[in-house]
Amino acid sequence: MNDPLRLGIAGLGTVGTGVVRIIRQKAALLSARAGRPVTISAVSARSRGKDRGVKLDDYAWEDDPVALAQRDDVDVFVELMGGHDGPAKDATEAAIAAGKDVVTANKALLAHHGHALALAAEDAGRVIRFEAAVAGGIPVIKALTEGLAGNDITRVMGVMNGTCNYILTRMQSAGLPYEEVFQEASDLGYLEADPQLDVGGIDAAHKLSLLAAIAFGTQVDFSAVQMEGIGAITIQDINHAADMGYRIKLLGVAQMTGRGLEQRMTPCLVPAASPLGQLEGGTNMVVLEGDNVEQIVLRGPGAGMGPTASAVMGDVMDIARGFRLPVFGQPAAGLEHAQAAGGSTPAPYYLRMSLTDKPGALAKVATVLGDAGISIARMRQYDHTGPNAPVLIVTHKAGRADLDRALEAIPRLGVVTDAPIALRIETA
Amino acid sequence: MNDPLRLGIAGLGTVGTGVVRIIRQKAALLSARAGRPVTISAVSARSRGKDRGVKLDDYAWEDDPVALAQRDDVDVFVELMGGHDGPAKDATEAAIAAGKDVVTANKALLAHHGHALALAAEDAGRVIRFEAAVAGGIPVIKALTEGLAGNDITRVMGVMNGTCNYILTRMQSAGLPYEEVFQEASDLGYLEADPQLDVGGIDAAHKLSLLAAIAFGTQVDFSAVQMEGIGAITIQDINHAADMGYRIKLLGVAQMTGRGLEQRMTPCLVPAASPLGQLEGGTNMVVLEGDNVEQIVLRGPGAGMGPTASAVMGDVMDIARGFRLPVFGQPAAGLEHAQAAGGSTPAPYYLRMSLTDKPGALAKVATVLGDAGISIARMRQYDHTGPNAPVLIVTHKAGRADLDRALEAIPRLGVVTDAPIALRIETA
Repeated sequence: MNDPLRLGIAGLGTVGTGVVRIIRQKAALLSARAGRPVTISAVSARSRGKDRGVKLDDYAWEDDPVALAQRDDVDVFVELMGGHDGPAKDATEAAIAAGKDVVTANKALLAHHGHALALAAEDAGRVIRFEAAVAGGIPVIKALTEGLAGNDITRVMGVMNGTCNYILTRMQSAGLPYEEVFQEASDLGYLEADPQLDVGGIDAAHKLSLLAAIAFGTQVDFSAVQMEGIGAITIQDINHAADMGYRIKLLGVAQMTGRGLEQRMTPCLVPAASPLGQLEGGTNMVVLEGDNVEQIVLRGPGAGMGPTASAVMGDVMDIARGFRLPVFGQPAAGLEHAQAAGGSTPAPYYLRMSLTDKPGALAKVATVLGDAGISIARMRQYDHTGPNAPVLIVTHKAGRADLDRALEAIPRLGVVTDAPIALRIETA
Repeated sequence: MNDPLRLGIAGLGTVGTGVVRIIRQKAALLSARAGRPVTISAVSARSRGKDRGVKLDDYAWEDDPVALAQRDDVDVFVELMGGHDGPAKDATEAAIAAGKDVVTANKALLAHHGHALALAAEDAGRVIRFEAAVAGGIPVIKALTEGLAGNDITRVMGVMNGTCNYILTRMQSAGLPYEEVFQEASDLGYLEADPQLDVGGIDAAHKLSLLAAIAFGTQVDFSAVQMEGIGAITIQDINHAADMGYRIKLLGVAQMTGRGLEQRMTPCLVPAASPLGQLEGGTNMVVLEGDNVEQIVLRGPGAGMGPTASAVMGDVMDIARGFRLPVFGQPAAGLEHAQAAGGSTPAPYYLRMSLTDKPGALAKVATVLGDAGISIARMRQYDHTGPNAPVLIVTHKAGRADLDRALEAIPRLGVVTDAPIALRIETA
């Protein structure tokens, strides 16, 4: 066990630089913990000249990540480039073909090509590990795949995009509209080059699809995630939800139902006093529920150099220690494609609408809801400010199809000014 | 990899029965996840005839756990008997000597004999795993040893005795005195046969000493834990702390300081809005801090059949999957005995005293504190109810030695009725 484990690192952005730094600074500690040294043979990045604040001349340089992945002196290909196609995919495939293990932080790559990559890796007797791809520094893949291996997982939930949670909690704390906080986040460099990856829920949905595959023993199926971003959430929604005892989160939920696998990444209300409700700023939280363990909640930084590099190193150390596991916890060849659940399990909903000042307006709305089989748990009407009165309704558990019927009918009543807003309430 | 992993289970209380149940109910799932079947060869318990609601006649029965541990058809000895000496220790030693791996939920055994057992196991090329010994269903040993293996751990904190947290939060929510809630907990069966294990902080201190050994790469040293139970906490303290924005928790803290390893299990104040402050009832929470990962918070059930059996099964599955690791994350032969830090790192403190109704009383107290170098951050004096007035003081960061000097001097002033109460404030 005293041969070093030799890495080839492709991508020297924040995370790659963080990994190099840890390996340089903690050589003795890592070696004591792994029972063998962990070394870097070669690195690769787009620009060779750039000063990254860390010494790189001890390592061979490759301009081409594919060439890096194929080097004889590399045992583990560490893919920190990102992107679900192009060089990251090419180099990962090349690494597997060349008989290397892979550690990656690339959620997009695995969400799109995870099953095919897992099949290839397992055919070649190699592992792909991706703790850093989900919820940054939180060892959630490990907890789910290994720690909870004695459970049938019943539900996985989480706030897994720190930027969205920053925007939503900052809107509330500063009383600012979405557009303004979005601009702030952009100025602070919190947003991806394509902001839809964040605020459209795509990045978080990538992560959810990976957790769902492990949790339910199915092929990763990103395309089946019901996805809705936070762009339509107003400061009024946030304040009204708070008045009713809730917070709004971009919440991912995956659960196996009688109708198939339900995967949702949508804005939801959660109780203000719940762990999810109390989550502020860019922090991530994942809730794992199993038939034996009941509920485990994991909370930590979802991004940043240190936390993400910590997750990459967890995977590297596992490989150094000889831990070998199928990519998604069970052999990929045996994973089935889960039928996607149409719709979503019944839940309480929060409805907001703006009533015109006409007698009987509220009664009409209530009648339509009742006719659709939706019963009202709580209702709050605010003072008219101008000609309209905001009305908030919390329903009892309702099916989404019934709700949609009512939501379609309400505007035709002539007593609301805009289409009603409906947000699911997810309870822990 | 298709040979079954064969268990011998000693102890068929709640947890042992839970483990048997999982292995019977989930044979196919466990086999798919581990790549091999997990089976039970033999079991052992004090009473053979007792109906445990689970079928046992498929397994050989041993009256003597030592004989169980030595059986040829046992690969892993699962020790769920408890007790830090006697049969649990004898059988664990016998298992190691017979070349078996060990999975145990026994925190007392490992807190007292963990280093010697680890040396013996590693000499024999065997592993001892103990996820279930710390914080029930939360995979915290795994997170710390494996997930955060790329970090220097800076601090480990936690609420790790659900009974104490139940008592403290129930006192607050119901406004009841300690004695009454202690009796309730006793009636509900929440307390160990020797309640000092719970309310004296011993059980939680066992757990802390195990986490500290892993976190700081030192020999487990339970005897060095500074320990104080919750028996002296009054409903007044809880209410006053709440007034100042805090909750009282039996909090374990381990950190490496310039003076050596500090291990404390004592009642502390934590901010009411922090994750620790918000922890209600019997739930456990562990906070792991590392130089790269910053802070990870893990929350989950600290006891019970399902959660504890889940943790045992996580260990069993790791062994079935071929994961092998030194008992405390690094070879025991290389672990040093950490010098115990005398005293504790400076911190803000909460002080409560009862002032007599004399002019200048408060000034005298403030002067003594000032003379000891302790500055006051916040102070609150309540109305006199009777002849005395409760006074609460939150200090700025103070050394415990300075504080103790002041606490000794204050009663000699003749202006307080009882010895002042001082509780450390631990901030996240």
